[in-house]
Amino acid sequence: MTFHERARFPMGFRCASRNVGLKPEARDLTLFASEVDAVAAAVFTRNQFPGAPIVLARETLKGGVLRAIIANSKVSNVATGARGVENARRMAAAAAAELGTDAGKVLVSSTGVIGVQLPVEKIEVGVRGMSADLQDNPLVGAEGIMTTDTHPKALSLSVGSATITWVAKGSGMIEPNMATMLAYIFTDAAFDAATLDRLLRDAVAVSFNMLSVDTDTSTSDTCAILANGLAGRVDEAAFRDALIAGCVRMTEILARDGEGAQHLLRVTVKDAATADDARVVAKSLVNSPLIKTMVHGADPNVGRILMAIGKCTDARMNTSATNAWVNGYQVVGGGERLEFDDAVVRAALTVEVVDLEVSLGVGNASTRAYGCDLTKGYIDENAAYYSS
Amino acid sequence: MTFHERARFPMGFRCASRNVGLKPEARDLTLFASEVDAVAAAVFTRNQFPGAPIVLARETLKGGVLRAIIANSKVSNVATGARGVENARRMAAAAAAELGTDAGKVLVSSTGVIGVQLPVEKIEVGVRGMSADLQDNPLVGAEGIMTTDTHPKALSLSVGSATITWVAKGSGMIEPNMATMLAYIFTDAAFDAATLDRLLRDAVAVSFNMLSVDTDTSTSDTCAILANGLAGRVDEAAFRDALIAGCVRMTEILARDGEGAQHLLRVTVKDAATADDARVVAKSLVNSPLIKTMVHGADPNVGRILMAIGKCTDARMNTSATNAWVNGYQVVGGGERLEFDDAVVRAALTVEVVDLEVSLGVGNASTRAYGCDLTKGYIDENAAYYSS
Repeated sequence: MTFHERARFPMGFRCASRNVGLKPEARDLTLFASEVDAVAAAVFTRNQFPGAPIVLARETLKGGVLRAIIANSKVSNVATGARGVENARRMAAAAAAELGTDAGKVLVSSTGVIGVQLPVEKIEVGVRGMSADLQDNPLVGAEGIMTTDTHPKALSLSVGSATITWVAKGSGMIEPNMATMLAYIFTDAAFDAATLDRLLRDAVAVSFNMLSVDTDTSTSDTCAILANGLAGRVDEAAFRDALIAGCVRMTEILARDGEGAQHLLRVTVKDAATADDARVVAKSLVNSPLIKTMVHGADPNVGRILMAIGKCTDARMNTSATNAWVNGYQVVGGGERLEFDDAVVRAALTVEVVDLEVSLGVGNASTRAYGCDLTKGYIDENAAYYSS
Repeated sequence: MTFHERARFPMGFRCASRNVGLKPEARDLTLFASEVDAVAAAVFTRNQFPGAPIVLARETLKGGVLRAIIANSKVSNVATGARGVENARRMAAAAAAELGTDAGKVLVSSTGVIGVQLPVEKIEVGVRGMSADLQDNPLVGAEGIMTTDTHPKALSLSVGSATITWVAKGSGMIEPNMATMLAYIFTDAAFDAATLDRLLRDAVAVSFNMLSVDTDTSTSDTCAILANGLAGRVDEAAFRDALIAGCVRMTEILARDGEGAQHLLRVTVKDAATADDARVVAKSLVNSPLIKTMVHGADPNVGRILMAIGKCTDARMNTSATNAWVNGYQVVGGGERLEFDDAVVRAALTVEVVDLEVSLGVGNASTRAYGCDLTKGYIDENAAYYSS
């Protein structure tokens, strides 16, 4: 799958972003717009305290049609009660007025600190005139939704005559359960709502839902896809492959930019009895602080791999046929740590992308999970997030 | 419950520790001995890759009688295959020979790095003559089993004419599942094996099993109790209360000495529908990196409390009647973050022991979990544990 060298939008989609005073200087408000109605599907956080934008978005998505997305950073509008939902509605109305569409066709997202009321007036004032700024560069939209992200995130590729574009943010509070922090997917391919929803769920299951930066499930997770149909119908299988490829690549980008991260950690579990067993073990490895610090320090303490597999007490495994590899170099064989040259394993752990591969020796199921190392940068960013 | 000012042993128990060359200088081998046979019970890790000492100890405990414990630090004898189990047997035999008892009455424990073969000859040579060093100070035994612990850990108290003494170690790789890293309990009270086993399991359920430093379940967790009966029978209810009190206190000591920790974090969940729901939510809070860094930085980012409750998607809760307090100061009411003075919450988070209390508003079940903050010290200790 080849991504475009510079991300661009499908036909009919554009975006703009601005500073409207939520942050001191950086862009803090983004608008995405489609020239025509787009069939839409979305998945949201399963956290039982969803943010006000999620409450509203679930209602909005029932219509199945979107024309725009308005999203702000700095304040997530979570744990803000009825006033929070009212403020989310005001955001949708402000975007609809600016774009000359219906508020019921505007998806609202907010990301940032939890438990602070949204300064919605700043957004209402700030969005005015943004339609004049709409442009074809997805990175402009990505910039307005960054929190602790170190760079804006966008990707695009072609499928037949159509284009798919991903714009996302996410750095901490990431173990999505149904979706990730904020990920928007735009395409000019034509799909009915049911097909689009199925394609999205299938792609999310193997990408964003296999991502974990820190085991904490955000209250604002949203992954939405908009298909405006301007490029007509495309081959569904090719589209599905492309959608999965882009979601996986964006998942890797998010993991690599996890708060404080210096490594992308990919964990592949194979020869599991079931896909569920594979998922549980892969998540255990990618979430283990002792695995994450081992990768961070390039410390060949690979016995920890067996610890993190074995603590999955309900996953089936053949403990005398369990094997593990670090970037292709076998370190565990038959459930025991092999004798090896420490320097080789240390070198394998030093590269930017660390692949751990584990065979449970009991079946044919496999999966892959995505994460990052645990560093002092994570603690710096999160010991004073509210105060800074 | 009043603990003795200086920990001491029950009648008939003594200990010794030495450096036998596993570590450069520090004590690395401990021997605990009872003058007479003691009724014994134990719980072990549920990790599917248990260390060789656990494999042997499960066999040993079938006898239900112990005379001694031999335990070393530095090397945990985990992931070492058949040779590892053979080395654990040699350790038991060496202790039995030194003490003039049967190897089947010696519990073996090892703690330290995973995946390295035990230098058993050093232990066999080093244990010789240790019976002459046996003494009444439990801290001497605690010293020989320290890994990253910053201090040796022992407690004792009186129940009627009997004494109960706890000796433990543990600092990282701690989310016990059935027991904790290494915790030994000695008493001269008389109990039959079945009663002792039941009392131990009840106490562990509300203490060591509610402890988490870093979500990682060790392959070596062992909690054993030895009752040699020299003080005769005591009131079972009083003994039970004392046993729980000491296990809870030792759990707090272990949590406070978690790797890099600067705070003891206690999370009480009440008004839950079931004890299981309470446990899941309490563990979610005590394990959340974003709660742990909030405590570390004394950052009043209390919206994270709702995130960590809400991510327990299967726990029942009344999201509009969920309340939370930080050291008695209410910060969440009716599922929303309350308006409060940041300085007060910051001050509440600055003290050494931070109590988070949560009401789920749906029932009568409650529980408490024990943990610590997440600091750069944790990363320092674990990014080079094997190499240092």
